[in-house]
Amino acid sequence: MWEAFDKASHYKLANLIAIVDVNRLGQRGPTELGWDTEAYRRRAEAFGARTFVVDGHDITAVDQALAAAGDLSGERPAVILARTIKGKGFSEVEDAEGWHGKPFPPDMAERAVTELGGERHLVIRGPQPPRADGAGTRPARGAEVKLPSYERGDKVATRKAYGEALAALGARPDVVAMDGEVSNSTYASLFAQAHPGRYFEMYIAEQQMVAAAVGMSVRGYRPFASSFAAFLTRAYDFIRMAAVSRANICLSGSHAGVEIGADGPSQMALEDLAMMRAVHGSTVLYPSDATSAAALVQVMAGLDGVSYMRTTRGGYPVLYGDGESFPVGGSKVLRSSDADQVTLVGAGITLHACLEAAGRLAADGISARVIDLYSVKPVDTATLRAAAAATGGRLVVAEDHHPEGGLGSAVVDALTAAGRTELAVARLAVNVMPGSGSTAELLAQAGIDADGIVAAARRLLA
Amino acid sequence: MWEAFDKASHYKLANLIAIVDVNRLGQRGPTELGWDTEAYRRRAEAFGARTFVVDGHDITAVDQALAAAGDLSGERPAVILARTIKGKGFSEVEDAEGWHGKPFPPDMAERAVTELGGERHLVIRGPQPPRADGAGTRPARGAEVKLPSYERGDKVATRKAYGEALAALGARPDVVAMDGEVSNSTYASLFAQAHPGRYFEMYIAEQQMVAAAVGMSVRGYRPFASSFAAFLTRAYDFIRMAAVSRANICLSGSHAGVEIGADGPSQMALEDLAMMRAVHGSTVLYPSDATSAAALVQVMAGLDGVSYMRTTRGGYPVLYGDGESFPVGGSKVLRSSDADQVTLVGAGITLHACLEAAGRLAADGISARVIDLYSVKPVDTATLRAAAAATGGRLVVAEDHHPEGGLGSAVVDALTAAGRTELAVARLAVNVMPGSGSTAELLAQAGIDADGIVAAARRLLA
Repeated sequence: MWEAFDKASHYKLANLIAIVDVNRLGQRGPTELGWDTEAYRRRAEAFGARTFVVDGHDITAVDQALAAAGDLSGERPAVILARTIKGKGFSEVEDAEGWHGKPFPPDMAERAVTELGGERHLVIRGPQPPRADGAGTRPARGAEVKLPSYERGDKVATRKAYGEALAALGARPDVVAMDGEVSNSTYASLFAQAHPGRYFEMYIAEQQMVAAAVGMSVRGYRPFASSFAAFLTRAYDFIRMAAVSRANICLSGSHAGVEIGADGPSQMALEDLAMMRAVHGSTVLYPSDATSAAALVQVMAGLDGVSYMRTTRGGYPVLYGDGESFPVGGSKVLRSSDADQVTLVGAGITLHACLEAAGRLAADGISARVIDLYSVKPVDTATLRAAAAATGGRLVVAEDHHPEGGLGSAVVDALTAAGRTELAVARLAVNVMPGSGSTAELLAQAGIDADGIVAAARRLLA
Repeated sequence: MWEAFDKASHYKLANLIAIVDVNRLGQRGPTELGWDTEAYRRRAEAFGARTFVVDGHDITAVDQALAAAGDLSGERPAVILARTIKGKGFSEVEDAEGWHGKPFPPDMAERAVTELGGERHLVIRGPQPPRADGAGTRPARGAEVKLPSYERGDKVATRKAYGEALAALGARPDVVAMDGEVSNSTYASLFAQAHPGRYFEMYIAEQQMVAAAVGMSVRGYRPFASSFAAFLTRAYDFIRMAAVSRANICLSGSHAGVEIGADGPSQMALEDLAMMRAVHGSTVLYPSDATSAAALVQVMAGLDGVSYMRTTRGGYPVLYGDGESFPVGGSKVLRSSDADQVTLVGAGITLHACLEAAGRLAADGISARVIDLYSVKPVDTATLRAAAAATGGRLVVAEDHHPEGGLGSAVVDALTAAGRTELAVARLAVNVMPGSGSTAELLAQAGIDADGIVAAARRLLA
């Protein structure tokens, strides 16, 4: 809540009115602050809000507070602190512990209705926000978007392509962006420069960033929120609640995995694919080059639910030309022949390692199929299954992520869900606690570089 | 931070001194509050802290503030707000943007050293906390623990067994417990009643709950922290950082899955197994009965790293007698014969569904092996592999969790990691967005009840 009050105050959201039901009781017993409305007031004021302390059972007082809060001249959000009595009106449970979330037994329910004045049919309507779909409030769509273009072989970071594509997508007036004080790293800064009126700096407040994105979605905007992928773990409950709330939000997490090198494990996202795959109805994308990253940013803007793009710090060769299409649930087979003996699956940094490994295996007379699994959820089961069938069930999956719940799980989940299957899978992932080092050192330590992939392929063929 | 200041103030931790380096600059640019130390002061004071505003470059002032903060008579934590200039002492970057986290090029580094007075060898030691391993500060261990005992067939919730075992484990004076204002649901309340001096009510502050657990671990205690499993998602970054910090903490999440029924999806943990499995070095336990839950609480107390127990709301039959052992990485085969045609794998509520399904399949002449996979990570690969081999590779895995990263992934990950294997796996999980309903209705809707398991087994055998 403090992140919310802080941001509402920073951005002078005078039309934001929060009502706190100060009823003294939690689920288990008394709350920490009880009825100390002065403590609540001090805190809300310290975070820049106007406050109104009222008796929450005095409807006239609540009405007056709402009217006063509606005066927007002060340019500060308003917090109405409504002191209430839990169970008010039914003397048997008024202000009593032990009734949180519990239905009354039928006899008590009957007594409660009687004491409250019998069955009535009152309708109370509080103030309503302006409709989001009315003229002038719902943003228009459909402007032409010209995505950035990249030369094959040029080394471009996918995070940079994310920012460049997002800035281009900003031609659509419904697109908004926000970032957690790392926009120079995620390249959300490019959107901020191009469309400053639709960019929201959320500072280091990932939870409120996701909450604001959900709110933007409800009001008809298409939000893109970004931070280091590792820092999105801070917002996991907001992300799962976004899914429960059926919000349509686009998230991007940069600096994935040990690839980032020197910054150390606190900054390395090694759990984000597992976290995001487990969200109901989510889409999880992990592009390996700038062309696919840019194309997928545009794809994300049309998706329902929570979508997530994992991006990489370093610059790696552009693999695809303009106009290539990257549907959700698809993949790209980058090397393939009728003589393939093993399939190498990667995404992000490990796809480049797979390509290098395939080249080295080819020099030794071993033909390897290489799959760019840019769509981690949903995953391209048909292509994986065809590859498994063509290569004797032999697959090497390499991922810059912990072994659980990421790329390898997506592959194995898909293959085993598709009916009886015979597999020989080598899963390469980050099993160690990484330290600080060069990208090459850390990829080698985790065994997810070309050396590791070549060795795993050889073992499968031994 | 506000949760931390709030709890430090609530518990009168006058010996907690925080220093805020107010240097005006974030990574991307100016911070939200800049050098507005008065804003910082108002907030910290509102949350109950004593504050000291100093020039952070004036070592004498810092020393004096530390000395003043060391006066514990006020019974409030202290926050020293140290106004500083980023890059101070090297004029080329002083108070300049664009240098966060960037090493200087060699020539700049040389000029910086020169301007700072040349190479010197100063050692500055700040105040040190008392050693945790000194006499009288590190808690003793080794008291005898008498775990609760349960009658086979009695219906007992695993969350209740968690609380009862934890209260028993409290005989060890190094065991401490904390909960996020739901101890009457997680049954941490039983520990609180038995050992009030070692129980810490963290109210609704899951992040600070985990942070406090990490601190307790550093000081030589064995912390058990609990909440609804769904609410632990709020603390995911603290949990992953606990792993990075090599802390030994025990977490328990209750009210897992759609089994909770009426409360609706916001309260249903359907991502927690994925989230916890992806933590480096974690142990993930999911007992199905009270005996195993109690035994595993004791096991957790001896584990390194982050361990997690998932518990269930409802009461289900006790399956095991006293003295049964439940090693980490083990499992229990509850039904088995030489004629088994299919393996049913469950944990928690779905194990009971597997047992019912096996009974119904047996009545139709189909023999099913049933495995209680109480140790989700590490998982009992040998037993799973033997079962797969014995039952023609046919497995039904049922879990009260989203399909990604949970029990089914643990099984498939283990089986495919064990060399070439032929599998026909049916994965039953919560694919829908559940609503509010009875346990039976929601399990049926998700297809993870005995009906769903019987049907899946029949399809594998068709």
